[in-house]
Amino acid sequence: MYVDIGNALGGDLGLERADLDALDERVADAHDRIERGRADGEHGYAALNLPETCDTAPIRRAADGFDPDHLLTVGIGGSALGAATLTDALGAGVDCRYLDNVDPAWVREVVDDIDLSETVVNVVSRSGTTAETLSNFLVVREAMASAGVDWTERTVVTTGESGNLRAMADEHGLPALAVPDGVPGRFSALSTVGLFAAAVADLDLDAVLAGAADEADRLAGSLFESPAYAYGATTYALAERGATTNATMPYAESLERFAEWFAQLWAESLGKEGTGQTPARALGATDQHSQLQLYRAGPADKLVTLVRPRESGDVGIPDTDLEGLSYLGGASLGELVDAEFRATEASLAAAGRENVRIEVDRVDERGLGELLYGMEAACVLYGELAGVETFTQPAVEWGKRAARGLLGGGDFPEADAVTGKRRLEVE
Amino acid sequence: MYVDIGNALGGDLGLERADLDALDERVADAHDRIERGRADGEHGYAALNLPETCDTAPIRRAADGFDPDHLLTVGIGGSALGAATLTDALGAGVDCRYLDNVDPAWVREVVDDIDLSETVVNVVSRSGTTAETLSNFLVVREAMASAGVDWTERTVVTTGESGNLRAMADEHGLPALAVPDGVPGRFSALSTVGLFAAAVADLDLDAVLAGAADEADRLAGSLFESPAYAYGATTYALAERGATTNATMPYAESLERFAEWFAQLWAESLGKEGTGQTPARALGATDQHSQLQLYRAGPADKLVTLVRPRESGDVGIPDTDLEGLSYLGGASLGELVDAEFRATEASLAAAGRENVRIEVDRVDERGLGELLYGMEAACVLYGELAGVETFTQPAVEWGKRAARGLLGGGDFPEADAVTGKRRLEVE
Repeated sequence: MYVDIGNALGGDLGLERADLDALDERVADAHDRIERGRADGEHGYAALNLPETCDTAPIRRAADGFDPDHLLTVGIGGSALGAATLTDALGAGVDCRYLDNVDPAWVREVVDDIDLSETVVNVVSRSGTTAETLSNFLVVREAMASAGVDWTERTVVTTGESGNLRAMADEHGLPALAVPDGVPGRFSALSTVGLFAAAVADLDLDAVLAGAADEADRLAGSLFESPAYAYGATTYALAERGATTNATMPYAESLERFAEWFAQLWAESLGKEGTGQTPARALGATDQHSQLQLYRAGPADKLVTLVRPRESGDVGIPDTDLEGLSYLGGASLGELVDAEFRATEASLAAAGRENVRIEVDRVDERGLGELLYGMEAACVLYGELAGVETFTQPAVEWGKRAARGLLGGGDFPEADAVTGKRRLEVE
Repeated sequence: MYVDIGNALGGDLGLERADLDALDERVADAHDRIERGRADGEHGYAALNLPETCDTAPIRRAADGFDPDHLLTVGIGGSALGAATLTDALGAGVDCRYLDNVDPAWVREVVDDIDLSETVVNVVSRSGTTAETLSNFLVVREAMASAGVDWTERTVVTTGESGNLRAMADEHGLPALAVPDGVPGRFSALSTVGLFAAAVADLDLDAVLAGAADEADRLAGSLFESPAYAYGATTYALAERGATTNATMPYAESLERFAEWFAQLWAESLGKEGTGQTPARALGATDQHSQLQLYRAGPADKLVTLVRPRESGDVGIPDTDLEGLSYLGGASLGELVDAEFRATEASLAAAGRENVRIEVDRVDERGLGELLYGMEAACVLYGELAGVETFTQPAVEWGKRAARGLLGGGDFPEADAVTGKRRLEVE
């Protein structure tokens, strides 16, 4: 992973090289803290050890028994996004779907759209009690039964050491993969949680982990020596100066889901105690015709994170006699997108709007491994510098209890607040 | 469209009913200005007349000649998002694709993935010079020729009264639809630009426009009498108090693209002169497991816009003996998503985080017409209140010139700024 923070300096938010030099001492301290956490296998920090601790053999074994047309991953949040990032970017061979919402019309559509007898289901929930995931799994299991498909032959469970799904796997002899200890869902892409789908899609798991290991090797006590820390520290420093939004804009359709994965990582890890940076997902070049006006001329409260592969396939643009377009003929779409990427970067800089460039060599297994690990390490560093509890998500519990109470799943006072909603309706 | 602004009041940003009462005089003035603009057919304001001025007959005629397996719309920004919002939500009959990016690998994949002899191409650009759109069209046209498909038999042009595409249509006798005068791209969903794809997908165009007309009829000199203005005025009032982000969170997979359309409308119209509200796209219930932690516990700088249909299909959740999940059995996915919607709303409110509820009866043609028109009118009102030029997008020109210069399309000084980029690379 290559990180270029040149355009993060000298913009409207006033960050200068000297500020980063001063911050670098705190980066060194934070790095020590992170390394201690990794050495002790502490909750959260343990995720940064996955390039060395993740054993791909059981993942491959669980996948090897299948050669499905469709892989249906039933999971939500971190139980879906890491796998989806990998298979959306690289998994052309198998139709990988993610049942990560409980919209009834959509669930019905997905289930009806695939041949369940040629489908493998991977149900993913550490606790085995995630309401959305378990509800969807019950629906899928019944649909398989209705279609005369033996669900026990086509279901793989990814869960914790105990709980509902573990018990179900034991009872029916299902292949079961363990969610590793100490790894929060949004940091689990490089574990069983993210890699089973990649294995079914025949991706090279070792190359993913090798890319991640490269980034792990480059963690160091200075932001100027580690791409991941360069990004994390710069982002933190800009946030401190008012960059409340981080607009993540990959210039590759294959990385659209990566921006979604990043949005969870960033929001859920750092959105604590009244602080945090709001991820906004964008896509280049498309969003030049949608978001760029705002990014360039709106409030000076954004960092734009531009992400791209250095190499990709290309398509020539045919010659044309259309008026004013002869300059396109002889060029290629690759040259056009490169020109637009650099023009957007410069356009933002010229308007005083901070931006950072992140590159990998290619969108392949190694490149994805670098990106996923690099962003995770950047996030952990940011969390250390900001002094937040990076690995928890306490604010989502209130709503879970309220929803459960509304559904008759127990006596939760939060449910009463729902029914007492303040209204001011205009229709 | 139903708008409930109850939870926009009394939160951490301090907006109270009395503030809205005070603002309502300015809403009345803004409404007068908007009505004058509509009466005079002024640029931009004219878009709010589309429910009455859009003639669906030529759109249907252009579509009627075709019965394709695939519709490939080649356009970017407002030339794609309105149509995509409609066909993503409702167009199950025809495979509608949008070539709205110039990523070479992806363009190649899309073109290779469809049977070009069963494809209709709609190339959409008012000026006929949009670099991305014309490049992609040239690629598609060549691919058709290579495949032995007569592109002139399968191409429909949507463009202005003159220019490249108009000339091409005249030369080859292609069906050509006119982009209406006075309607900026991001306000063109209810015109030829948005409705041709809907017509090919066999949607009821008149119902779309009838839904829009309903919202138009409800524009009034008070925010308390018009759902669109209730949303626009409340959003403006919250932005003035520090809601720099508008997180749009539909609770329906079919409305995912609507959030993207909204993001362009909001960003490009209101992101001006150092002001504007940053749209963040989210999706319920999925993003409860991703963004909600931040929305609830992060900075008090957000409005969360929750959008949903009041009615949709449902799927029962089968009974289960899984431990702790019996409360789900007998319920349905619809009940689960309803409980989660209301729980999220209350969870945000309990934490002092402002949110607004927007509902339509159903995700159908009428409901989409209401939503598209309602949000456009809300945006125009916000623009009036904020005193910005809602219908321009001057900040994107710099980058266009820079990219063109880089590609050898003329001598643009902006291109020099690109090559002089400041670098600070960490690898």
